[in-house]
Amino acid sequence: MTTQQLISEIYKKKSFLCIGLDVDLTKIPKHLLKEDDSIFAFNKAIIDATNHLAVAYKPNTAFYEAYGIKGWKALEKTIKYLNKNYPEIFTIADAKRGDIGNTSTMYAKAFFEDLGFDSVTVAPYMGKDSVEPFLAFKEKHTILLALTSNKGAFDFQTQKIEGNELYKTVLKTSKNWKNSENLMYVVGATKAEYFTEIRKIIPNSFLLVPGVGAQGGNLQEVCKYGMNKDVGLLINSSRGIIYSSNKGDFAEAAATEAEKLQQQMKTILDGNHRPA
Amino acid sequence: MTTQQLISEIYKKKSFLCIGLDVDLTKIPKHLLKEDDSIFAFNKAIIDATNHLAVAYKPNTAFYEAYGIKGWKALEKTIKYLNKNYPEIFTIADAKRGDIGNTSTMYAKAFFEDLGFDSVTVAPYMGKDSVEPFLAFKEKHTILLALTSNKGAFDFQTQKIEGNELYKTVLKTSKNWKNSENLMYVVGATKAEYFTEIRKIIPNSFLLVPGVGAQGGNLQEVCKYGMNKDVGLLINSSRGIIYSSNKGDFAEAAATEAEKLQQQMKTILDGNHRPA
Repeated sequence: MTTQQLISEIYKKKSFLCIGLDVDLTKIPKHLLKEDDSIFAFNKAIIDATNHLAVAYKPNTAFYEAYGIKGWKALEKTIKYLNKNYPEIFTIADAKRGDIGNTSTMYAKAFFEDLGFDSVTVAPYMGKDSVEPFLAFKEKHTILLALTSNKGAFDFQTQKIEGNELYKTVLKTSKNWKNSENLMYVVGATKAEYFTEIRKIIPNSFLLVPGVGAQGGNLQEVCKYGMNKDVGLLINSSRGIIYSSNKGDFAEAAATEAEKLQQQMKTILDGNHRPA
Repeated sequence: MTTQQLISEIYKKKSFLCIGLDVDLTKIPKHLLKEDDSIFAFNKAIIDATNHLAVAYKPNTAFYEAYGIKGWKALEKTIKYLNKNYPEIFTIADAKRGDIGNTSTMYAKAFFEDLGFDSVTVAPYMGKDSVEPFLAFKEKHTILLALTSNKGAFDFQTQKIEGNELYKTVLKTSKNWKNSENLMYVVGATKAEYFTEIRKIIPNSFLLVPGVGAQGGNLQEVCKYGMNKDVGLLINSSRGIIYSSNKGDFAEAAATEAEKLQQQMKTILDGNHRPA
């Protein structure tokens, strides 16, 4: 999917919501455990109930790998289901991969070609030659970890390198990599005041923003400082939406929570200038 | 496996060799492609031919994920085969994972419990709460990326934070994390002169050292500066061993290459003081 297609969907749906599909079998409704593929059954119901409210879905691969081959199959079924039934949806493999050149190419093929995701999250620690293999794929997007929403972000990401925090060095350096137009960035919502500085460095890039809701981030604040002329934000919510209920009405309950966020987004978009 | 058991194996086999099982179907002998599970068939032959020369095996998960469910099955079969037939072998899932707390726990369960690896490689960028969930597992080891062997290592890892390179900050900071005795570190062999400084910070930790052979690192130099009283090194070679031949004799050829390294290691160990 091109960035322009994603932007069109955002304005069409009046939503820049991404729903995190972090499926934990101990948290889903008990009646689903009788299904052959409980994880996929849960995802399918959530997707069918919420796809008109969200522009993106983001399975975190850890939750699937934790169930071994069964989990990997559920991930594959989920992405194939999305691509077949909702091709307008932007899909994110939240995998946080990163390795040396030829190995990164293997990861890129796994997520972009084999599974067919539009994008994958990648860790920056190993530098340019660990990320560029991902950037080489046309109409695919590499979402680089910049400033994450967890406490540990302050261990290294905000440490200063010649006066600049490491995450800013990551932003600046990555702009010079080959095919850097295919980069997006992860920036946690728990630190809304950082968005002003971030937008000075990367005014045009899309940001994937976790941490709204369950982790305490504030949507209005993030939009105030983080939004750009093309919206430029994908706001992720996982637990706050998918685990709204663990009874028979779980999918409807998820849609209700998703709609609350989507309605806030609509208000923000309606107040914002939009492209012609 | 405990660190003490690993050290005993090193002295018993006169080897601190780790063999990287990075299986690329375009590089393995053609006759194996007829097998039901070509990847496992290749790994099994390599393991059976080289296990007396190596103390550790390290599948890089990217190579398995690239083949989807088939690859994931091959990885599972490989680790089960190792654990059943060669329980004295130290196993490393080279996965370079790292995510926020509850997600890291899912990854840790996937690799330590589901698959049964002794250790997993983890990226430090997200800090303490992304790594500690791995450290909580008893007799399991978390191998933190410190200084990698690729060019991109100079993008961020060697950048200075208040006079200290980032990788040194990673080493120092991680020592204060809970259960840090379960930490080992990845340090690339291509930078042997760095080992002196690294040993000042972490004198006792085991280091997993890629980059000897194919990537140009020198075994003698690494041992000179990096070895400690318990050896403290696992030297990894992947392509240099497993792709020595792509004909019917591939396993014997791999053993020949592994033995060359093991013999050098024996000479180094014999010249070194050893524990009582």
